Amino acid sequence: MGMRKILVLGAGRSATTLIHYLDNHAGSSKWRVTVADSDALVLEAKVNGLRHTEGKLFHVSNPADRSRIIGEHDFVISLLPWTLHPLVARECLRLGKHLLTASYVSPAMKSLAIKASKKGLFFLGEMGLDPGIDHMSALELIRRIRQKGGVIRSFRSVAGGLVAPGSDDNPWHYKFTWNPRNVVLAGQGISQFRERGQMVLRPYPELFARAEPVAIGEDDHYEVYPNRDSLHYEKLYDLEGIPSLMRGTVRFRGFCRGWHALIRLGLTEGVTELHTPPDMTWARFTGAWLSSVAQGVALEEECARFLDISLRDPVMDQLRWLGIFSDRPLGISGRTAADHLQTLLEEKWALRPHDRDLVVMEHRIGYGMGKEAIECRAHLRYEGKDVWRTAMADLVGLPLAVTTRLFLTGHLPVPVMPGPFEARIFEPVLAALREEGVSFEEIHIPGNGDESVTRIHS
Amino acid sequence: MGMRKILVLGAGRSATTLIHYLDNHAGSSKWRVTVADSDALVLEAKVNGLRHTEGKLFHVSNPADRSRIIGEHDFVISLLPWTLHPLVARECLRLGKHLLTASYVSPAMKSLAIKASKKGLFFLGEMGLDPGIDHMSALELIRRIRQKGGVIRSFRSVAGGLVAPGSDDNPWHYKFTWNPRNVVLAGQGISQFRERGQMVLRPYPELFARAEPVAIGEDDHYEVYPNRDSLHYEKLYDLEGIPSLMRGTVRFRGFCRGWHALIRLGLTEGVTELHTPPDMTWARFTGAWLSSVAQGVALEEECARFLDISLRDPVMDQLRWLGIFSDRPLGISGRTAADHLQTLLEEKWALRPHDRDLVVMEHRIGYGMGKEAIECRAHLRYEGKDVWRTAMADLVGLPLAVTTRLFLTGHLPVPVMPGPFEARIFEPVLAALREEGVSFEEIHIPGNGDESVTRIHS
Repeated sequence: MGMRKILVLGAGRSATTLIHYLDNHAGSSKWRVTVADSDALVLEAKVNGLRHTEGKLFHVSNPADRSRIIGEHDFVISLLPWTLHPLVARECLRLGKHLLTASYVSPAMKSLAIKASKKGLFFLGEMGLDPGIDHMSALELIRRIRQKGGVIRSFRSVAGGLVAPGSDDNPWHYKFTWNPRNVVLAGQGISQFRERGQMVLRPYPELFARAEPVAIGEDDHYEVYPNRDSLHYEKLYDLEGIPSLMRGTVRFRGFCRGWHALIRLGLTEGVTELHTPPDMTWARFTGAWLSSVAQGVALEEECARFLDISLRDPVMDQLRWLGIFSDRPLGISGRTAADHLQTLLEEKWALRPHDRDLVVMEHRIGYGMGKEAIECRAHLRYEGKDVWRTAMADLVGLPLAVTTRLFLTGHLPVPVMPGPFEARIFEPVLAALREEGVSFEEIHIPGNGDESVTRIHS
Repeated sequence: MGMRKILVLGAGRSATTLIHYLDNHAGSSKWRVTVADSDALVLEAKVNGLRHTEGKLFHVSNPADRSRIIGEHDFVISLLPWTLHPLVARECLRLGKHLLTASYVSPAMKSLAIKASKKGLFFLGEMGLDPGIDHMSALELIRRIRQKGGVIRSFRSVAGGLVAPGSDDNPWHYKFTWNPRNVVLAGQGISQFRERGQMVLRPYPELFARAEPVAIGEDDHYEVYPNRDSLHYEKLYDLEGIPSLMRGTVRFRGFCRGWHALIRLGLTEGVTELHTPPDMTWARFTGAWLSSVAQGVALEEECARFLDISLRDPVMDQLRWLGIFSDRPLGISGRTAADHLQTLLEEKWALRPHDRDLVVMEHRIGYGMGKEAIECRAHLRYEGKDVWRTAMADLVGLPLAVTTRLFLTGHLPVPVMPGPFEARIFEPVLAALREEGVSFEEIHIPGNGDESVTRIHS
């Protein structure tokens, strides 16, 4: 087989690690890499100095562009927004090209992947961090426990993109390391999980108020709230009938109480278009939720009273630090409360040039082995190196990168399902990730029943 | 002008009064009426015994059907769901037919109405109760106050479809007299109004908790919560810059606390598809929101504790009466919490054969006259006659009916706007409604400033 041509669509935040890995392996693996993006400056920054990689301007919405560039390559990795994937996938299917993404596989993508699989094409999604590493590491653990005869009774998996402790300098102990919109709207709707055989439903206004403290590895300063639909994973992970099942999001302790305050005020609502004039100050805006015209400390007092907390509560420090009592104008950045809040947060929670991010992930699996109840805890703690090589870029980019290499060097089969749910996919990928320094620490604690694992509400 | 042909599309609940009125006036006014519906039984029930009216089976989704039947008539009244109106409107525009509806005028309908107006066609929407009578009565009042020199400082308008006191036999003091879905989802999003110059924003989880008691006319047992977007009416009613502006919904006192409890539990959420099995009991379902496996009184105790009320609180009677602690299965009626709740409520809050409904509406307008502050209060209290001639059917049907008669007898011009916002439309219609017994009682209270008018939160 001669020179293979790899196409990376989208040169955004999560592309750095992927592109460098592909370029590093290009010589020995005999491939060439093209990075395509609509932004010439971003493109130049990403391919500058690389030996086997070139940048190409490209507009995904242009069908001729799309068709030409995909036609010139063998293997396509799409980092475009997930809503654009079907555009790319249809072209790959038509032209007989392989396709890899890190996004959730939508129903549209699923039906395209089934057709691709019949044509012998490698079509795989959910191959980043979450979804991606979460699936693979959990499934590998489940498989291993069952292979040694364990009967699984509880499964709890939590993950979070955070700021590294050394770069944590605000009272929220949080900065954006991923899509801000998703953070602002996180948890809306009803969260569903299961606890000792009983379904638990938690509506949004209760969700952050009932976050639970957890320790992950040696670190005892995290907290967790349940994700929207944990029960979806019952079938996906072959855990039918499991008494306890929960997936959750990790934050540093204290975040969730503050975020709950923003929810109670109404500031995370992203649907209703508000009649707020652009020159309205944040103090006035906050006052509108409190039905108050107070200013300064009086406004803060009204807010604290509304939230039923003291003026010296850490939540008030968080709110004050954000500037929701300030004279800063709302501006014209959007029409909903969530739009205004996001604008504020994007400034306040921005990573600075020397900041590093942190990803944590932990699976806890309670299982019976004969008469013994055992709890397995496996966790990943991964810090970013700098503002380019973030933990997010590494942990999204490396699974894509090693999967590409493994497939192009003949070490991965064409998958049946369009996600990493088969052992013949996830085992080689996890092994390759370990070589890149992405590995879980694992302990098995005898005598730990499923009680301790699954408590998530008080 | 010879015999005119009127077409009524849709023979549902709100059609009765309209059809009877049109039939009664058919002899003197020289017209014939056709009622078209896709349900033969409903059709037969509605036209049975009428002298000038015939029923016709009709499927709006069939373009040939639609085109033929509209082509055979001069004046079309659509009682179809509002999403279907553009289908009808485009055909009316093409064939040069007049069109009247009781629904909000969507952007799509607005652009069709503008074209119709240029062709000299009568195209009018928002001609029922709310929207309809609310607009007309408020605008007439505003106009009259301004004509005598009043300067309007506050506007508050509230309305509600309720059960007549004689038919009120449940602890919610409420039954469905209108679209149950709208009642279940009422108030979601953020409600916006203005109070003494200050914008007030109220998110859904606060909305029903802060309902306010009000007296309307002699009756002192109502309560009111603000509707979603009161500020939309600032421009619509020519009230730019008014310090206090609120539109609200009326319930009998005690309803809102109970409804707030359902919201807190999460039972009104209509988006998230739940993994609830159809044989799950309501007790189990309620337990899921409380993270509880308790049954019977223990479950009720947990619920009361969650809501921070006593077991003897009237809200607990409301919840018990609904059956949310019972062994009744959820069934397969839907996938969201709101679907399940609606199924339960449709049974519990059904009007029985001898029940009568009640509509109340009140406008309060604070205005200055020279140095005097005056409050005008105008209210409508209208009880249904029986289960066919409901207050709702009368108050939606009569504006449509008298508008049709006035236009076809040459007493209404073609409107510029597609709603009843012009005095030359609303004045003759209101006069005709008064003749039908639909009239407001009005008082002007000197010395009442805008303070008393506008308080809606504590």
